[in-house]
Amino acid sequence: MFEEINAYIKRYSDFTEQEIADFNALLQPKTVAKKTFLLQEGEICKFEAFIKKGCIRTYYIDHKGTEVTLQFAIENWWVSDIASFHEQKPSLMFIETLEDCELFLLSPETKEKLLSKVPKFERMFRLMVQRNLTRLQERLFQTIATTAVEKYLDFLERYPSIPQRVAQHYIASYLGFSPEFLSKVRTKLSKKSKTAKA
Amino acid sequence: MFEEINAYIKRYSDFTEQEIADFNALLQPKTVAKKTFLLQEGEICKFEAFIKKGCIRTYYIDHKGTEVTLQFAIENWWVSDIASFHEQKPSLMFIETLEDCELFLLSPETKEKLLSKVPKFERMFRLMVQRNLTRLQERLFQTIATTAVEKYLDFLERYPSIPQRVAQHYIASYLGFSPEFLSKVRTKLSKKSKTAKA
Repeated sequence: MFEEINAYIKRYSDFTEQEIADFNALLQPKTVAKKTFLLQEGEICKFEAFIKKGCIRTYYIDHKGTEVTLQFAIENWWVSDIASFHEQKPSLMFIETLEDCELFLLSPETKEKLLSKVPKFERMFRLMVQRNLTRLQERLFQTIATTAVEKYLDFLERYPSIPQRVAQHYIASYLGFSPEFLSKVRTKLSKKSKTAKA
Repeated sequence: MFEEINAYIKRYSDFTEQEIADFNALLQPKTVAKKTFLLQEGEICKFEAFIKKGCIRTYYIDHKGTEVTLQFAIENWWVSDIASFHEQKPSLMFIETLEDCELFLLSPETKEKLLSKVPKFERMFRLMVQRNLTRLQERLFQTIATTAVEKYLDFLERYPSIPQRVAQHYIASYLGFSPEFLSKVRTKLSKKSKTAKA
């Protein structure tokens, strides 16, 4: 049951068998059907979720009422609204499953318990938050990328498996494109790649 | 010399005298004149800087060539491009002093040394990155705030001492306003507050 998540944590530190057992005992397994909200705007985020199986999208709704996809998360990623989780204040985002998911959850209480029992986990969580910050920063800067084609290629590099797994309009909403415009970009690229091969 | 930064770290953990001495020995003190770049786009960020004295701005240049202020940082804050620092890849941002500054720097090497010598610091850095992430997220969501007045009031709440310290056009660039528009918002608010007092 815990193979994936234990393989994941072992990348960060040498944990003893006892420490891993303590960690596993604090995880809350949860199965969630696709198209379910784990969090909605205005709610306080009570979880950090490790994805054992499935695909999840986080997004917010901008001042024009448009959904803006912040991030996709798949196997071996953690998903949460860390700001809301740690400061226990209402979230500004939505977290929604796009596929049936198997998750392991930590709550603010079980995470604190874990950290006081096995402080070695501090490092793992620091590196996780750092990656999260890096991604959000890149997300912010991604709007600087000059052309639509560059943005889409950057997306493919970052999320190679996502186009096969999620609906095109979610990818469009990540890129800030209309679905029609994304379709044009894809056609343009596929023509280019055919020319290159010819 | 180390009073402020030692008071700062003691908020996070009970460090022994020896641990604090180890920490202080790894810090590189640096005095920087105002209007100096600590980092420019394309460079790799080699520091996390604790501000003992002074005020610093981080910004990037958007696709229209406009400066967008990401953050102001003052005494007792850390400033860095964490993404560039940790992954040692070129930064997309500028970090510039707005006042004469007294800083303490950690490099990737001294930070790693510190963390392997005193793992208790993991917690402090995790909480720092979390706050950083929270701020960046709020920064992203701040664009959702409906009215200009709300955005400005939110800014004043977040950065109460900044309006006295930095030029108005930097605040405008943080808010995504033109300097003229910011001036109108301020006039509107000052009229409101006079009416309220009358």
